[in-house]
Amino acid sequence: MRLRNKPWAKDKIAAYPQYVIPNPEQYKGRWNELFGNDHPIHIEIGTGKGRFITEMAKAHPDVNYIGIELYKSVIVSALDKLIENDLPNLRLLNVNAKDLMNIFAKGEVERIYLNFSDPWPKKRHEKRRLTYKTFLELYENILVDEGEIHFKTDNQGLFEYSLVSFSQYGLVLQNVSLDLHNSDFEGNIMTEYEQKFAEKGNRIYRCEAKYRKPMQ
Amino acid sequence: MRLRNKPWAKDKIAAYPQYVIPNPEQYKGRWNELFGNDHPIHIEIGTGKGRFITEMAKAHPDVNYIGIELYKSVIVSALDKLIENDLPNLRLLNVNAKDLMNIFAKGEVERIYLNFSDPWPKKRHEKRRLTYKTFLELYENILVDEGEIHFKTDNQGLFEYSLVSFSQYGLVLQNVSLDLHNSDFEGNIMTEYEQKFAEKGNRIYRCEAKYRKPMQ
Repeated sequence: MRLRNKPWAKDKIAAYPQYVIPNPEQYKGRWNELFGNDHPIHIEIGTGKGRFITEMAKAHPDVNYIGIELYKSVIVSALDKLIENDLPNLRLLNVNAKDLMNIFAKGEVERIYLNFSDPWPKKRHEKRRLTYKTFLELYENILVDEGEIHFKTDNQGLFEYSLVSFSQYGLVLQNVSLDLHNSDFEGNIMTEYEQKFAEKGNRIYRCEAKYRKPMQ
Repeated sequence: MRLRNKPWAKDKIAAYPQYVIPNPEQYKGRWNELFGNDHPIHIEIGTGKGRFITEMAKAHPDVNYIGIELYKSVIVSALDKLIENDLPNLRLLNVNAKDLMNIFAKGEVERIYLNFSDPWPKKRHEKRRLTYKTFLELYENILVDEGEIHFKTDNQGLFEYSLVSFSQYGLVLQNVSLDLHNSDFEGNIMTEYEQKFAEKGNRIYRCEAKYRKPMQ
């Protein structure tokens, strides 16, 4: 998405440390203390303006959600939604996905959502795609055994790439949909981008990829 | 495809035993003797009217092709093409795919083509789909180690199903294309059906699925 410079974003984020957690490394291995319960934790990497994660948190009060977004100028929109809704089961992190292992302990996350991630279409940028093998390895190090990635995109090339990448890493595909909005998938919550794009009549691709049970 | 009754088909097939091999079980483990060389063997299951396999055999003289088709009224069209072209590296079998293990020894086939297989869309017919797990097991029993299935279809539901089925069986996906005719895939040979369908502007889906190296 096009980023607008919002010089005030930094101060606003700093003003709401109860929602956008500063120094999240301090909660590594004890996020459930922060939430005050033992509900499973689902994270969204690249949470953007936060509609998806906010609606998910409203719809599933028995799941704890953490939205992760690198860009301050974007995460402030997610923060606005959280201020408005004051959801006890949703928190935001203004960090780089590369640092996830410093923030979550192995097995602390049950599910990862990747929605409309940057496709990085140039081959030389392959390593930046959030479904590249080094990211799949990183996710494995914070997910529970048999944890899942739930992935949506409108980008055909990124979807093709990701199916292969998941498969080559050894993940098992589930619920592949090549036209999500014309499928029988229930309970889909659209991101801001997804709605805009789907209104043009274009296809949304979706799949789930599950890590295999580790060998004993 | 709609089948027309062709009462003469049986006699025609019987008249060309050098092309449509009778009692193919007799060649199990020694198909290369029939071809008179040690070239790899690629088979197409559901070869239909034979355009794909005939063109492949012309384009790749260093590969031996076997087209398998259950319906006599259909395979006669493939036979006509073979009579016309007299290709030494192409033979046809009028058998049921279920009997493949009686016809080929383990490791005798290098690659399997599945083109526009019957989608069997009803859940209760799942077991008939040529990408159902019992078929994947059957293929494994005739393929070389790390053998491949090359799969094309216009049927979105069958493609979604097959990606999951391949993945759950432990096959590794390669070269997934969600719009083959608008991709950079080179050397695509269209089936009769594919051309007709693509001319309507619809999408062709394609992927390769590779068996993993067996554990030592």
